[in-house]
Amino acid sequence: MGTRERIVDAAEQVVREFGIVGATTKRIAAAAGCSEALLYKHFPGKESLLLAVLLERLPALGPALTRLRLAAGTGDVADHLTAFTLAALEFYTRAAGIAAGVLADPSLTEGFRTMLARSGSGPHLPILALADVIAGEQDRDRIDRKIDAGAAASMLMGACFHRANLSYYVDPPDDDATWAASIVRTLLRR
Amino acid sequence: MGTRERIVDAAEQVVREFGIVGATTKRIAAAAGCSEALLYKHFPGKESLLLAVLLERLPALGPALTRLRLAAGTGDVADHLTAFTLAALEFYTRAAGIAAGVLADPSLTEGFRTMLARSGSGPHLPILALADVIAGEQDRDRIDRKIDAGAAASMLMGACFHRANLSYYVDPPDDDATWAASIVRTLLRR
Repeated sequence: MGTRERIVDAAEQVVREFGIVGATTKRIAAAAGCSEALLYKHFPGKESLLLAVLLERLPALGPALTRLRLAAGTGDVADHLTAFTLAALEFYTRAAGIAAGVLADPSLTEGFRTMLARSGSGPHLPILALADVIAGEQDRDRIDRKIDAGAAASMLMGACFHRANLSYYVDPPDDDATWAASIVRTLLRR
Repeated sequence: MGTRERIVDAAEQVVREFGIVGATTKRIAAAAGCSEALLYKHFPGKESLLLAVLLERLPALGPALTRLRLAAGTGDVADHLTAFTLAALEFYTRAAGIAAGVLADPSLTEGFRTMLARSGSGPHLPILALADVIAGEQDRDRIDRKIDAGAAASMLMGACFHRANLSYYVDPPDDDATWAASIVRTLLRR
């Protein structure tokens, strides 16, 4: 395993254990068995290291979106969306700690904002990708055309993000699968 | 102004300036012009102080929910829900920093979880309250009975919470009012 990989692994482990507040580059370097100088050679700042953890170590939304795209036009659209909802919920639940940590530190938020603007990426892109899939199914008359695809995607992803955050404070009254099915049913009015 | 009020004001100001990471009780006490010992006399821990800021200093969801309840059965239900959506979005946008700060610190999260369990309150209650209003309008045949009221409330609140968080990283492509109206239209299928 290369140094870069070791550092990303160490960062994930340190964030899990100490929270993002306690995840200093000093602690991460120690866990990776390297110097802070070497850490900074691979990652210009804490933001880029945290982004690497988010993109490379968490169950990504990308594969779930790809599965949804590949299934478009076939089978039961509600089933596909329910499976995607569960994947999004799992992703946001694992990402919540790091996402919160970035927002809790104004200088980290600013660094992230700048980095995202430069790379043209951002946490809003999965909503756009989902809206695209929904619009495609509307073109095929598999989802009611009266729905605004963007609004529907906002609500589905937002419901997952919110539930992921809430689950850190209170236990949900229903299980995830039941909840996901009722979200999709209400959205598609099935 | 009493000491307790001074401390809550100081906490809000310090969190805004230094982020929750930098909002130490030492710094808050200094801003309030009191000793840390006096601060701890009013608030047993940082969690209860942060909860006081959330409940007493932020634009609360309570009044918006009350307005929604009072308007039930009268006028245009989509208009009422759109106004509520905008109020929820504003609330979550202002609360996002503190909410993130709590989640970013595992010991603070645990403290909050315990405190909420003891008081029977929690960040999920507004969803239940909104679901109640939606169910009432369904009883009056003003909202499609095929909607699951709980799922609809999850999606509306979730979309607001998510957008509030995203807006710290990327500028939304549409203005809040247009967005809120499209969310409600898609939910009610108008």
